[in-house]
Amino acid sequence: MTAPISELAALLPEGALVTDEATSDAYRHDSASSCAAGRPLGVVRPTTTAEVQAVMRWASRHRVPVVPQGARTGLSGAANAVDGALLVSMVRMDRILEIDEVDQVAIVEPGVVNADLSRAVAAVGLFYPPDPSSWELSTIGGNLATNAGGLCCVKYGVTADFVRGLEVVLADGEVVRVGRRTAKGVAGYDLTRLLVGSEGTLGIITEATLALRPAPEPALTMAAVFAKTADAMTAVTRIMASGMRPSMMEFLDKPSIRAVQAYRDMGLPVDAEAMLITQSDRGPLAAADVAAMGAICEELGASEVAVAEDAVESAMLTQARRLVNPAVEELGATLIDDVAVPRARLVDLLAGMEQIAAATGTFVICPGHIGDGNMHPTVVFDRGDDAAAERAQRAFDAIMRLALDLGGTITGEHGVGLLKRTWLRSELGERSYALQQQIKSVFDPLGILNPGKVL
Amino acid sequence: MTAPISELAALLPEGALVTDEATSDAYRHDSASSCAAGRPLGVVRPTTTAEVQAVMRWASRHRVPVVPQGARTGLSGAANAVDGALLVSMVRMDRILEIDEVDQVAIVEPGVVNADLSRAVAAVGLFYPPDPSSWELSTIGGNLATNAGGLCCVKYGVTADFVRGLEVVLADGEVVRVGRRTAKGVAGYDLTRLLVGSEGTLGIITEATLALRPAPEPALTMAAVFAKTADAMTAVTRIMASGMRPSMMEFLDKPSIRAVQAYRDMGLPVDAEAMLITQSDRGPLAAADVAAMGAICEELGASEVAVAEDAVESAMLTQARRLVNPAVEELGATLIDDVAVPRARLVDLLAGMEQIAAATGTFVICPGHIGDGNMHPTVVFDRGDDAAAERAQRAFDAIMRLALDLGGTITGEHGVGLLKRTWLRSELGERSYALQQQIKSVFDPLGILNPGKVL
Ligand SMILES: Cc1cc2nc3c(=O)[nH]c(=O)nc-3n(C[C@H](O)[C@H](O)[C@H](O)COP(=O)(O)OP(=O)(O)OC[C@H]3O[C@@H](n4cnc5c(N)ncnc54)[C@H](O)[C@@H]3O)c2cc1C
Ligand SMILES: Cc1cc2nc3c(=O)[nH]c(=O)nc-3n(C[C@H](O)[C@H](O)[C@H](O)COP(=O)(O)OP(=O)(O)OC[C@H]3O[C@@H](n4cnc5c(N)ncnc54)[C@H](O)[C@@H]3O)c2cc1C
Repeated sequence: MTAPISELAALLPEGALVTDEATSDAYRHDSASSCAAGRPLGVVRPTTTAEVQAVMRWASRHRVPVVPQGARTGLSGAANAVDGALLVSMVRMDRILEIDEVDQVAIVEPGVVNADLSRAVAAVGLFYPPDPSSWELSTIGGNLATNAGGLCCVKYGVTADFVRGLEVVLADGEVVRVGRRTAKGVAGYDLTRLLVGSEGTLGIITEATLALRPAPEPALTMAAVFAKTADAMTAVTRIMASGMRPSMMEFLDKPSIRAVQAYRDMGLPVDAEAMLITQSDRGPLAAADVAAMGAICEELGASEVAVAEDAVESAMLTQARRLVNPAVEELGATLIDDVAVPRARLVDLLAGMEQIAAATGTFVICPGHIGDGNMHPTVVFDRGDDAAAERAQRAFDAIMRLALDLGGTITGEHGVGLLKRTWLRSELGERSYALQQQIKSVFDPLGILNPGKVL
Repeated sequence: MTAPISELAALLPEGALVTDEATSDAYRHDSASSCAAGRPLGVVRPTTTAEVQAVMRWASRHRVPVVPQGARTGLSGAANAVDGALLVSMVRMDRILEIDEVDQVAIVEPGVVNADLSRAVAAVGLFYPPDPSSWELSTIGGNLATNAGGLCCVKYGVTADFVRGLEVVLADGEVVRVGRRTAKGVAGYDLTRLLVGSEGTLGIITEATLALRPAPEPALTMAAVFAKTADAMTAVTRIMASGMRPSMMEFLDKPSIRAVQAYRDMGLPVDAEAMLITQSDRGPLAAADVAAMGAICEELGASEVAVAEDAVESAMLTQARRLVNPAVEELGATLIDDVAVPRARLVDLLAGMEQIAAATGTFVICPGHIGDGNMHPTVVFDRGDDAAAERAQRAFDAIMRLALDLGGTITGEHGVGLLKRTWLRSELGERSYALQQQIKSVFDPLGILNPGKVL
């Protein structure tokens, strides 16, 4: 061990710091397969805020880069190691400190797994809506640092919408509390929202105060299949205009439908262009809602419409959406895009994507959170084929350019990380980008927090 | 005119700049009666972003302080003149540029009056929820810069929750766009939320992209009167826990009930301790909701419960809440507080307030947005009585201290401005306060934007 590392070890409890290569290696990557990862110094798994402070004081003293990590399910390389960095995995700070039923807030450590929190609050009749598909694995700290979305954002909003306050260890080791416990508050600038989505580059989140809601009623599901994508889009617009407030509004394009059907025979019509899966959780209104959504789809020429009458049927109808991820994994290596465009431009996005696939000779599959215009165009290519990987990268980039041209964003929920870092400037513009760099310098003047990510 | 002022006049269209004392005087104050206002250089009423840029370039060149203004309905002195400042009133930039029904967004200039936008979107079946009681007067720019709340926040959230993106002129005159048009987006730090609530200290908002929703169904109202405040609080907790999602949840304490009844005979029981007024806008469920809310109140010992069956009855029941402001104005001079505490601490807040009133020999009246724990303890005192004014100030300060001690905030929706500036540090803590100052310096290195406000 180098001198600084043994100094760090002495500051921490036995076992908190691990520097053997096998462990370090295991922590090098998040789930973005195509992003580079450096060689870390080691991994710390602190169990208290004080330990995180000790780590950051040490890191500041020795100018050692630090990469905060949650469950490493991230899809942008934001949690990947950089050379010579200390990885700070927050997974052992995993206590739910408080669930307050009167105020409907939870106070949690960052390593709490999303699903564990969701189940704990459900047990007392409450609801923590943010539900990234990684919810059984990903941590609240990671969700906060990426401002994660999920299936129910279309009705309930994203992670940021459920954050009241944070405790954060700054780059120099000082701890600050930002935000509040109350529902409302406007005292000073909103540092809470600045930290949410900052991908570990401004501070390490050590505690979060989260807003909860009363538990919703069980959702019912509607699924519809269309011969024409444009008709599905019109259905989306009509349903969103209706006031029914779907609690889920998902889309599968033709390649997604085919991939799922190939993966598991669900009787999906492989010639259909588009499939919509929607839900209502409005309790006594849910049955009428999904029936009305189904009627809208039928009116617009849907070739098949299925309306669930109970939880079992609902689960069956959502199955197709849930199987897209595993089905796509079977097909090869992937580059998962995460663009969002105004809903009115979705037809153009899908048409443009097809052109991009044709022009680059790639295969692109596109499921997505269509109610929010947030799609996941996924470029599939043969593992180990360098030329194919290069074409895939071109298609991936062209899709981001297309989204920007359509008035959209390069990332709706996965974040910038390493994956989209070279694109951020194009989206923000020079001055806005420069402001972000200056803000980064305010929080992290030495540039030791997750360097080379985002900006 | 001094040289710089004539230089400015030459940069702007005829009539945009006014420097006569009568006009300047008319613009010196917002609606916070107790805050000092300086002597401005003059008033500019720009009609384009380019004019705002010209103003800020000029102001930077000559180090002239600039105070952005909306309708000056603010209650914290944030829009008050400072000595030697140029007042930049945004009221002439009042065009609604776009209402997009598919994407459910509106793009507006900052001078648009809240009610004008609300009516314009309602005309196409859409809904802009933020509804400060000043909605017929206050501007979207002012609402954004203060992150205004309103009656329906308890269900729909505050202004910040409906902002997607902004165009902002920076202190040096450069224009930036932050945020986006899409529902989701996580590209870089959230500068939009940083600017919202910044009270004109970080930039001048020249355009906003706002999220809309489908129009809600008309609301029905329930009103209940309690002999014991604690029972009313229990009713609040039960209703908030129920999943009915009230679209309004307002409170009147005994002095408020009495003030309203003295102002207009509405048959209110002047011996009651507390009155709750709630609404449901859940369409087909609304009637059952208000009945259920009424039943909860009855069960908890409410002495009178009224449940509206239609819009006319609903309006009658909300009348008492709407009359609090004019009724209080009759009573004398006021210092309006705006603290918020966790709902579980509301009983303590009200009890503490009574003690403060007794200890300072003041009269405190307390209506509030109780569903969010955001109360408006209002210290009433005789106009022109300096000793009374001094006692009122002590009570006002003690209420902020109390709110902080109860885990709350000094301001739930009115902002810091001049009024609460000396208190901000106590709420934020030293380091968090210092971070805010550094962020201010990033945006406004010369310190010319609304100096002396907030920080
Ligand atoms: C199968 C699958 C499905 C997914 N579905 C979704 C989805 O529906 N929606 C969605 O938004 N994402 C989704 N993701 C992406 C990923 O799960 C999210 O980005 C998630 O929020 C990451 O959480 P994590 O704990 O794994 O964080 P990590 O991947 O470990 O880290 C993510 C970022 O957060 C930072 N970070 C982590 N903890 C902290 C902390 N305590 N303080 C400061 N910074 C910290 C890291 O430095 C990094 O920048 C999915 C991923 C997979 C593999
Ligand atoms: C009767 C009454 C009822 C009220 N009810 C409520 C209520 O229910 N909820 C609530 O939250 N508030 C309420 N208020 C307070 C006030 O109406 C709000 O703070 C409102 O948002 C102020 O808007 P305005 O246009 O009047 O802004 P102003 O008072 O002119 O300015 C307020 C702040 O915004 C800044 N500002 C204004 N325009 C811009 C711009 N374009 N760019 C940058 N900064 C700008 C100013 O510098 C100042 O800091 C009430 C006030 C009154 C008088």
